Formats: sequence, structure tokens, C-alpha cells
Amino acid sequence: MTSHAGEKWYRTETALGARHCVGRGDELIVVDGSPFGAWKPTGERLALSSARLLPPVIPPTFYAIGSNYRQHIEKMAATAGRAPVYYERPRVGYRANNALVGDGDAIVKPADAGEEFQYEAELVAVVGETLRNVTPARARDAIFGWTIGNDVSERHWQKIDQTNIRAKNCDTFKPMGPCIARLADLSGMRTKVTMNGVLLHDFDTLDMLFDAGEVISEISRYNTLSPGDVVWLGTDDKPRNMKPGDRLEIEITGIGVLRNHVVAASA
Amino acid sequence: MTSHAGEKWYRTETALGARHCVGRGDELIVVDGSPFGAWKPTGERLALSSARLLPPVIPPTFYAIGSNYRQHIEKMAATAGRAPVYYERPRVGYRANNALVGDGDAIVKPADAGEEFQYEAELVAVVGETLRNVTPARARDAIFGWTIGNDVSERHWQKIDQTNIRAKNCDTFKPMGPCIARLADLSGMRTKVTMNGVLLHDFDTLDMLFDAGEVISEISRYNTLSPGDVVWLGTDDKPRNMKPGDRLEIEITGIGVLRNHVVAASA
Repeated sequence: MTSHAGEKWYRTETALGARHCVGRGDELIVVDGSPFGAWKPTGERLALSSARLLPPVIPPTFYAIGSNYRQHIEKMAATAGRAPVYYERPRVGYRANNALVGDGDAIVKPADAGEEFQYEAELVAVVGETLRNVTPARARDAIFGWTIGNDVSERHWQKIDQTNIRAKNCDTFKPMGPCIARLADLSGMRTKVTMNGVLLHDFDTLDMLFDAGEVISEISRYNTLSPGDVVWLGTDDKPRNMKPGDRLEIEITGIGVLRNHVVAASA
Repeated sequence: MTSHAGEKWYRTETALGARHCVGRGDELIVVDGSPFGAWKPTGERLALSSARLLPPVIPPTFYAIGSNYRQHIEKMAATAGRAPVYYERPRVGYRANNALVGDGDAIVKPADAGEEFQYEAELVAVVGETLRNVTPARARDAIFGWTIGNDVSERHWQKIDQTNIRAKNCDTFKPMGPCIARLADLSGMRTKVTMNGVLLHDFDTLDMLFDAGEVISEISRYNTLSPGDVVWLGTDDKPRNMKPGDRLEIEITGIGVLRNHVVAASA
């Protein structure tokens, strides 16, 4: 992987349809094929600044971890008036692909969503190989790269519904992007959340209870992970409410900035 | 759709890779493309009896409904020693694609799964169009066809885990098939479950609290359904335990029989 360090993979609409692209300076080199397998340039190049970015991958399976940062667990528990719970093993969940949108896209707040409509800024590991029953070390080696996710959540629905299909998986509730970055070294990585130009959070991205290798290893005890699967790794701190008109930026060192804005549902 | 009534769509491995096939008598006519869009025969034909069938579709999003039959709700509640709960709206959930297997495949019981390792025999609606905010009547018209699902569930994990990734989404926990049948008329449809040659259940498939149109309409309030999405519609009665060696057959009128067998995990 070292030779690929710094490489960034995007996805965008091209004359041929949705295509993966590798970034080179301000340009996107459009390719046929997949970054997880064989690919070759189509010859088409696009300006990164004017491309409409899609989620950088549509995962075969979309995993997401809850309760993976100490301060998030403690602050959410305090708000709910209960004792914090630290899980002994990664708390593995999953999400639905219909909810994915890309960098620059709108997050649509449903008409009946409540006030506690919140972002969650997350580091995302993108799996590069087929994995089953692997150690954390082996899992770490099999990570293709990293992207940024916003695990948008409606807290009232999260409390009252029997499943999280509505609380976390409505259309547009899962912005992901802007790219998949291949990184040789994650040290010093920080996650910064800015809303309407104001910095709200700035936390140590890697200060997790379970790192990506441990999480993927746990998933692989029961499930086969496939190239392109994504594993969202949880958020720290206590997210704030978002309302239509708000502009959100999530920046993670070495990857870039995921920008989305909130709009009210038209219906 | 009437002109397509009785058409059955399969999926299998071919010389060209995984392909959709339309059934004709004892043969599979291999096609390029998708039954939900454009397709044309490749010229290859295979014997249905010797083909290894794959799940007839890999859904973009995999929806599943719980608590959709009265007797299932009542018997499961009685076993748990609690009052039955009838939901006022369809209880929408979802599943993970890693768990899908086809007709004839093994259901692998994990080494640490408990005794209450159970099947759930379900009618599955396969969506044929892009749908958002639609009425039940419009949703019914947009159903491409029907298949059979087995929503394998480990009840202890279902009780203790925070999410159902392990209880319902381990590898092989979601057999689906054998085909997608296009049906003009569902009246008189019955679901029969046979284990090791013994008929265990025989229920009215359509005696649901919410029919497929109502369920899809509910999903479409928040989510865009896409061609190939599947909606598993719940099971009736009280499922029994399965153990390695058990052979399970789920038959639904007009679709066919989904056959799978249980094996112990090798690890």
C-alpha cells in the first residue's frame, strides 16, 4: 500500500455513466473498472472543482459501529439521564445504501422529523479484500483506504422505532466522501466539524475504544467482508441539532472535507 | 404485467459470470442485462435441474418487515411471557446483503449460536420501479414479481444484541429464491414449511396485517425504492429450532420451493 499512499479515489457522473476516478492535482482521471480490482483510464479527464461527486463507493454491505468514543458515550448518556455503557466488544450495526449521497449534496430533513436532527462525523474504513475470521492486524492490512461519513440521525425516531431504518436511513441521511484516501500513516489524525463557519468539534479521530482493525476482525467472526464494504467507525463528542439552511463541513486529516447542507423536504 | 404472468427469473453462474436467466420449461435462457431493465439472450442455455442457483437478485437495498402476521405475534409474545403488540404501521427493518445465499445452499450455524436457531418463511416482493411517496395501489402496480425468503434468526442474539447484525445477518442467514415469479393473481396463496420431510406449517400467505403495497407505500414515505429492491414480508406461526443436518423446504404457491440445509460451522 505504501506506494499508493496519498492516492485519492473519487466517483462522478461522466459521459459513460457513473465512474471511479483517480485524482491528479485539480483533475479527475476517469477509469473503467474498480479501484478494488482491475482498472484502466478511459482517456477522459474532468476538473475536480466542477465535478458533482458521488459517494466514492456503493458498498456491497454497509457496516457502522456505535458507541466507539468515550466522550460521546458519556455525554449522550448524561443527556438521557442514564449511566454510560461501554461495550466489551465493538457494537456492530449496519446501514442501507438508499441513504447514501455524495459531497456537496443536500441532506433533506423530512417534514415530520423533530428538532433533534443531528450529524455524526465519522472516519470510514474502506475494505480492499475478502476477509473472514481475520485478526485485527490482518484486517488493518486489508483496508484499502479511508473516507468521511456523516451518520445523520433523528434522535426521537431512534428512541421510539423498533429499527433504525427511519432514524438513520432515510434518503440523504448518509453523506459519504469526498474521496477514498490511501494513507500510509494515520498518526495525528483529527476530525473537525464546522457548522455555518463555526468550529463545533475538534477531536482525536483515533481515540476510539475499538480501532478499525479490531472492528473488522469482530465483524469477520460472523460475516465475510468484501472489497468495497465500508465500516463507519463512530463519532466523538455530543452532536448538535441541524436545521434547514445549515451548512456542515466535516474535515479529517489526510482525507479532505465532506460538505453538505440541510434543506427542508418539499412535500 | 399480465403478459409476463408466469414468467420466472433465475440467476446462476455461467461461463460469463453471474447472469440473470429466464426459465423456459426445464431450461434457463441466459441473458445479458437485467430483468428490471433492458436484456437480451446470450444464446447460452443451461439445464435448470443441474444449475447452481444464486439469489435471484442482489438488492440495492434489502428491506424486511417484522410482526406482520397475527398468529406469529401472539405465539412469540406468549412464549416470551408478554402481551402481543400489533403495530399501527408496518414495522420496517432491513437486512445486509452479505447474508444472502441461494436455493440449495447451506445455512451455516455459527459455533457459538444457541439452540433457538430458527427459520422464518417469508413471501418477498421484488420492486420493479423507482418509487417515492406512492400510494399502496401504485406500489402494488410497481411490484415486478415475487420470491421466497428464509429470515434465519438466532433468538438469543436477537434479545441481547443492540442491533440484529449477528442475530439475523451472519453469512448464509438469508436464503432467497429459487426464482422471481411474475404472478397476475395471488389469490389462494399458501406458505408451507417442511423440515426433514415433515410439514410443520401451512398458512395463508396473504393473511398479513399490512400487504406488500401498504408496506412499500410506508417505506416510500422516507426512502426511494429502486428496481431490484426486495421487501421481505414477515412470517406467520411460531418457527421451530433448526440444527445441523436439518433439511428445510419453504414452498409458496406459484413461486416454487426454496430448499436449504443446515450445517455446523467448520471453525
